[in-house]
Amino acid sequence: MRILLQFPEGLKKNALEYARKLEEEGNEVFISASPSFGACDLAISEARKLKVDKLIHFGHAEFHKVEENFSIEYIEYHIDADLKILERSLEYLKEYKKISIVTTVQHIHQLQEIKKFFEAHEKEVYIGKPFGFAKYEGQILGCDAGSAASVDNIVDAHVYFGGGLFHPTGALLATKKPFFVIEPFAGRIERIDDLRINYEKRSRGKILASVDAKKFGILVSIKNGQYNINLANILKRNIEASGCIAEILVADTFDFTSLDNLMSFDAYVNTACPRIATEDDKRTHAPILSANELMEVLKIKKDLKH
Amino acid sequence: MRILLQFPEGLKKNALEYARKLEEEGNEVFISASPSFGACDLAISEARKLKVDKLIHFGHAEFHKVEENFSIEYIEYHIDADLKILERSLEYLKEYKKISIVTTVQHIHQLQEIKKFFEAHEKEVYIGKPFGFAKYEGQILGCDAGSAASVDNIVDAHVYFGGGLFHPTGALLATKKPFFVIEPFAGRIERIDDLRINYEKRSRGKILASVDAKKFGILVSIKNGQYNINLANILKRNIEASGCIAEILVADTFDFTSLDNLMSFDAYVNTACPRIATEDDKRTHAPILSANELMEVLKIKKDLKH
Repeated sequence: MRILLQFPEGLKKNALEYARKLEEEGNEVFISASPSFGACDLAISEARKLKVDKLIHFGHAEFHKVEENFSIEYIEYHIDADLKILERSLEYLKEYKKISIVTTVQHIHQLQEIKKFFEAHEKEVYIGKPFGFAKYEGQILGCDAGSAASVDNIVDAHVYFGGGLFHPTGALLATKKPFFVIEPFAGRIERIDDLRINYEKRSRGKILASVDAKKFGILVSIKNGQYNINLANILKRNIEASGCIAEILVADTFDFTSLDNLMSFDAYVNTACPRIATEDDKRTHAPILSANELMEVLKIKKDLKH
Repeated sequence: MRILLQFPEGLKKNALEYARKLEEEGNEVFISASPSFGACDLAISEARKLKVDKLIHFGHAEFHKVEENFSIEYIEYHIDADLKILERSLEYLKEYKKISIVTTVQHIHQLQEIKKFFEAHEKEVYIGKPFGFAKYEGQILGCDAGSAASVDNIVDAHVYFGGGLFHPTGALLATKKPFFVIEPFAGRIERIDDLRINYEKRSRGKILASVDAKKFGILVSIKNGQYNINLANILKRNIEASGCIAEILVADTFDFTSLDNLMSFDAYVNTACPRIATEDDKRTHAPILSANELMEVLKIKKDLKH
């Protein structure tokens, strides 16, 4: 069997060992060396060109059904984090009775144990439902903070269990309640509500910087789970209706140097991974707006005309 | 008509104007925001995903026939450089009777005029034939220095007319005679033979650094004009026959950070754009060998065993 292996950055170091194992079983194996940001970002162009029978995507749960001539296998990567740190988190959470817990797919198998721990310490624990991209209750993705947002009205605080700030930041921005991060690897517990204010300020800054924009570049990624040409077309019509110019700019993973080489655009509007507008907006010469931020820009433009 | 426009980096600034013109004619237009390195690097995955009727590729001559469901139009970009600088070059070239002239597709329309100038100053001018990727006699590409190499035995010196060092460096490394660059935009004339020694030293360094390598990663690009899985398979078999490990690593444009995240490889072997092994070898933690350099490494390994 011809097999293409795809790993996210943190798991790429396992690629060689895995490839060797599959080769010993008689398969012909290729390794994708491209960045991989999630199951929204399957190595489809590579798999097609290599005419493989199977794409094995590591580290992420299935994002949506993808129909191709080859089969797609998702191998999740579970990490058993030490839960001793939970004991220490009680002090941080003592004021909050009702809490939600969210995590990434790496620790989703530990969620029930975490829930039981907090219940044993007299918390009411809520596990929210994702909006539709994440696969499991309590799981969050860069583009799906539903597991936190869906219970924001009920709980007194949110708790993210896992590594990094990429995932909790998405959930933080989709909620209003106090937000705590329990990072089992670094042994770090932190309240991160302040980031909401930072991001809100950056968002206001981007909107104000775009009020005079005349030429908008709308970013469309061809990644399987990020391609949204319909939204791009709607935004284009809205921009043009306001008397401005809009063009649709297409890439797989955006190279921000190449994007800026287009030079002509006063602002970009993101329709791909929603995190591009929050995380990458300092990597371009022009602001990168979310669709919502664009609509606010167009509203201000209209108000200014009257 | 649905049209995708693709521009090399230096011409991306013209994208918006061109898109607007085509839209005014009633077309639906998209702009590729990806890096574009040549006609070997058509935005095929983007064009397929967008289901366009036509891909218009600017700035490069056709590289090879590509069969897709959409049509592909190549629009060359000719720049009329000021030829006054040729007068000054005569002093540099006074010792050489027989010269070859090479240039890029941007100035190929000026080649006959340049030839006539030198002939009027008593030079014998040779215009070589490309190996097969470049389209015109006298034209050079990053991967096709045939127009210089094919007349290296005949001429006393080579002259490159045009911008940048990327193109003449390829021709320089494929020849042995004195090599002059006439850069009409910067008004610069320079003899660049010294670079041959630098590159030769770097090549020796890479070979020596790879002699103890056990695990080789073979780079395969899925770009239309760079995909060479057959060569990759041959190299893999050669490496394995020497008792080492080889895996095939696949990407469109290689992201060297992601490549290095694989961590396991002691050396890379390039089968994509040949210039990756000469230009990008300092961007990775492990040396990037050309196929020829790999064969030399394997030969040294064999000799050391005896």
